[in-house]
Amino acid sequence: MNHQQQLTAYLHALIAELGKSGVEHAVISPGSRSTPISLLLAEQEDINLHIHVDERSAAFFALGIAKASKKPTVLVCTSGTAAANYFPAIVEAKISRIPLIVLTADRPHELRDVGAPQAIDQLDLYGKHVKWFMEMSTPDNSPGMIRYAKTVGARAVSMAKQQPSGPVHVNIPLREPLIPDLDNLDSYQLNEKEKPAIRMDIGDFRMNDAYFLELAASLDGKGIIICGEIDKEDFSAKVIQLAEKTGFPIIADPLSQLRSNSAGTNSIIDTYDTFLRNEKVKSLLKPDVIIRFGSMPISKPLTIFLRENEKAKLIVVDGGIGYRDPNQLTTDMVYCEEGYFCEKLASFISHCSINHYLNIWIDINELTKKELMQTAEIQEISEAKLFHSLGEMIPNDAVLFVGNSMPIRDLDTFFHKQNKKVTIIANRGANGIDGTISTALGVGVIKQPLFLIVGDLTFFHDLNGLVLSHLYKLPITVLLINNNGGGIFSFLPQVNLPRHFELLFGTPLGIDFKHAVEMYKGQYKLIESWQGLETQFQHSNFEEGMRVWELRTNREKNLIEHRQMTDRIQKILNQLG
Amino acid sequence: MNHQQQLTAYLHALIAELGKSGVEHAVISPGSRSTPISLLLAEQEDINLHIHVDERSAAFFALGIAKASKKPTVLVCTSGTAAANYFPAIVEAKISRIPLIVLTADRPHELRDVGAPQAIDQLDLYGKHVKWFMEMSTPDNSPGMIRYAKTVGARAVSMAKQQPSGPVHVNIPLREPLIPDLDNLDSYQLNEKEKPAIRMDIGDFRMNDAYFLELAASLDGKGIIICGEIDKEDFSAKVIQLAEKTGFPIIADPLSQLRSNSAGTNSIIDTYDTFLRNEKVKSLLKPDVIIRFGSMPISKPLTIFLRENEKAKLIVVDGGIGYRDPNQLTTDMVYCEEGYFCEKLASFISHCSINHYLNIWIDINELTKKELMQTAEIQEISEAKLFHSLGEMIPNDAVLFVGNSMPIRDLDTFFHKQNKKVTIIANRGANGIDGTISTALGVGVIKQPLFLIVGDLTFFHDLNGLVLSHLYKLPITVLLINNNGGGIFSFLPQVNLPRHFELLFGTPLGIDFKHAVEMYKGQYKLIESWQGLETQFQHSNFEEGMRVWELRTNREKNLIEHRQMTDRIQKILNQLG
Repeated sequence: MNHQQQLTAYLHALIAELGKSGVEHAVISPGSRSTPISLLLAEQEDINLHIHVDERSAAFFALGIAKASKKPTVLVCTSGTAAANYFPAIVEAKISRIPLIVLTADRPHELRDVGAPQAIDQLDLYGKHVKWFMEMSTPDNSPGMIRYAKTVGARAVSMAKQQPSGPVHVNIPLREPLIPDLDNLDSYQLNEKEKPAIRMDIGDFRMNDAYFLELAASLDGKGIIICGEIDKEDFSAKVIQLAEKTGFPIIADPLSQLRSNSAGTNSIIDTYDTFLRNEKVKSLLKPDVIIRFGSMPISKPLTIFLRENEKAKLIVVDGGIGYRDPNQLTTDMVYCEEGYFCEKLASFISHCSINHYLNIWIDINELTKKELMQTAEIQEISEAKLFHSLGEMIPNDAVLFVGNSMPIRDLDTFFHKQNKKVTIIANRGANGIDGTISTALGVGVIKQPLFLIVGDLTFFHDLNGLVLSHLYKLPITVLLINNNGGGIFSFLPQVNLPRHFELLFGTPLGIDFKHAVEMYKGQYKLIESWQGLETQFQHSNFEEGMRVWELRTNREKNLIEHRQMTDRIQKILNQLG
Repeated sequence: MNHQQQLTAYLHALIAELGKSGVEHAVISPGSRSTPISLLLAEQEDINLHIHVDERSAAFFALGIAKASKKPTVLVCTSGTAAANYFPAIVEAKISRIPLIVLTADRPHELRDVGAPQAIDQLDLYGKHVKWFMEMSTPDNSPGMIRYAKTVGARAVSMAKQQPSGPVHVNIPLREPLIPDLDNLDSYQLNEKEKPAIRMDIGDFRMNDAYFLELAASLDGKGIIICGEIDKEDFSAKVIQLAEKTGFPIIADPLSQLRSNSAGTNSIIDTYDTFLRNEKVKSLLKPDVIIRFGSMPISKPLTIFLRENEKAKLIVVDGGIGYRDPNQLTTDMVYCEEGYFCEKLASFISHCSINHYLNIWIDINELTKKELMQTAEIQEISEAKLFHSLGEMIPNDAVLFVGNSMPIRDLDTFFHKQNKKVTIIANRGANGIDGTISTALGVGVIKQPLFLIVGDLTFFHDLNGLVLSHLYKLPITVLLINNNGGGIFSFLPQVNLPRHFELLFGTPLGIDFKHAVEMYKGQYKLIESWQGLETQFQHSNFEEGMRVWELRTNREKNLIEHRQMTDRIQKILNQLG
């Protein structure tokens, strides 16, 4: 066969296998070297295409799609720095265990390290930040090589999905000419039109019954369950059942999804970020045993509480076989699928136990929440109140993407368990402020209505991401908290070094984001009152368009407001019996 | 000493040594873990600070400063994906040999791979794309470790500068608390206030006289000199002297800087991108010997001409000991400082030779230029004419940054040698469209007045870079060629596959950049006539502010215009004797 037929047969085998193995979305950045990959993807009916010029943003967009769909998403770019722009999202995907399949076109061997245009060293480009790297051969359509191309496709999907899920990288060297034979694609189809050539099924980690029997027998004393970020179907129901059986309260991080549809579940504790700052409370709540699921929770007071109870038995359950314990307090590391663990362990506990220790947690949680509710009385635009109000105003079944730095912390403090379903998502692998708009919009491809709550620096960092809403009519509602700079630094010790503070940490941008929103033909609204915000919520159609609602706040006043509230609640908690 | 004193002494030793070794600029992105590095840099009087929230853009900005100043520029960021955002600029810096010193703050060892916030694996983060990686110890102020910190500072500067220059990465693990002892900094100064603790001097590669004697004797027959991108002081004068002695024409890429101040130098050939498309011309110009300096020239017809003359002796001179020859045509690779090579070789050639072969080059160059000048007659807004006119309108002593993709190619064709000084700069290491605005503004820190000519996708890709002009009052004049999409793809074979062309390659953004310019408080002007453009050039003060002049063009018409001109000139060249 000639060059074009070889190119077509080989790449079609790879790409069709990706589709048959379950890939549903691909995000492509335009380029020349990647031409045949892009064109063959465009011919693949079972894969939805999204096109984006900015590769950094494109990669975060793919991350969002994969996060929400829980399926590997394909990224395609040309050779050169294009591929390097994927790096931040790949790093985030690796840590947060999101499956991505990165296909980079490359120059063939003879054009490497010889000063050829747009040629960089792409072998192991992402180093230890991908789970798997495969440098493919140049196209070849011998039966063995077609089988190889299919195997790479099937394995890329499987490797990306296997626990812990994550990004994989396939580098594809291609010689010119780069145009595939689209007109005769059918002749390159092999027998199976629907089934993948290689079906790969993946088990998960499970302990045997003897393990659970022993563990169940050992669970006496005061116990708690902690759930950090975890987004697995049915996990909520299973961990709540385990809590009922054990009589343990559940410390529920906002990313545990346990603050959704759970206002009536007393044992779900959602104000610990406030009450675990109090020494008296902490002395009442000392646990003997802790079972932890998911990634480390956001709350710093909770982390300190764990450190102060280092003698407790700490069982960390991780279906993704990592080691997520920055305090090194774990006494029992258990590599087991989390839902299975809950279900099995609960099945070996014969009766439900209600106990005094659980009730103290519940009482303190309710007392604290009553006090936190007073933020509702604040008349001025306030960051604290915004997160509180959001719980009331956000529609049922919404997805709420939360920016890093202050928003996720304020959400932890002020957004409590709801009687509606709200899926809360954030980029908490590496906690970066980068790629936030793009990741949120990627989530919005799968789940709507989409809300994003974000600070001004985070919004600025990924401003290019907004073009995705404009180009592909992806609805989004952004709550933009503009305190003109880096609000989190006001909570850190450098705030006491005024000489360089604004220059190095405050970093005000002094820009009016209204212009950016108008450039992308979105609706911009400056929110100047709570009534105004409510009106927007009541009268907006969240199923279409881009809305950016800006709330202007003040970093110094925000710090004082947070401190005053904490102080007031501490005084009340100090009076506890 | 206590933690704070150790932290201060150690980092101060490192940072002061960077300053004493010649670092003049640092670009800092705000973050928490990097707090002591940033604060100590702010105290360093000999280093200018630039602060930028978007690390991708910050790194390109540092690249621009280093490109224009030819001195290592420091980058500082916090741990996590912040550091991954530097990757595209680092890849570009490595290939284009620009010295950068990347200082990344990191979590200490006990917080690595344990799910700690903002902790990623930063060891060898940039892989083979930095020249040197050093993981430092945690701060320690024993005399040996202070000496070590200084050595790392001195070596980072030296490693970044050594030929081939490039990026180096120093990773610095830091424990909390992160506040240095700024009030008593003087007490941490060591004896030498001005001198570096370790002075490092770097020689360059030179051949001995016997080599040049032999080479000079061998240079007979028809010869040409080719200069790609090279930006070394005095190189122009030295290569022109060599050309005079040898009687060889100089094929001058726009990035060779030889089209500046050289309108009267006949032997500088600047229209080869047009006339080397002609078979008849190529048969007249076959060389026996070629001496090439700098990176590969931009022109594709020149590359093909080289390939067609593979029997010629091709001497590639590279002071940066790389291997820049994608055609693998080199017969003699010479690792020698380029200016020294020219000077020495010229000194061994006794008389100036004027010859018939040189005259053919000069005549064809002048004939072609006369024909290319006809673009001046175009009445409509045209990409070709813009590059032609730019030569006339741009002020003396300006620096012109050129975007990749079409602009650099059009510049090569239509921007000829001038009687004024215009420094032309582009990111031609990996030829990416990323980071263009930021790199240009970095150049603008060192050289003004700054002009940037760029297409709409490239402008969009790095829109965040404009904030640097806004925040730090960096003057810039942008000529924005908006053909609403990727114009270069119309010149590639996929233009004949209409089914997916606009989706995958045309990629129109459909946005009005006026809003972005207004967000950054720049002046926006839609240029609708050549008279209008001239007026802007005449009445603008290029020493302050941001100006964006947009010229709207049409991709299809542009393709036709280029083709018609090429066809017309080919016909004329075909008539040559």
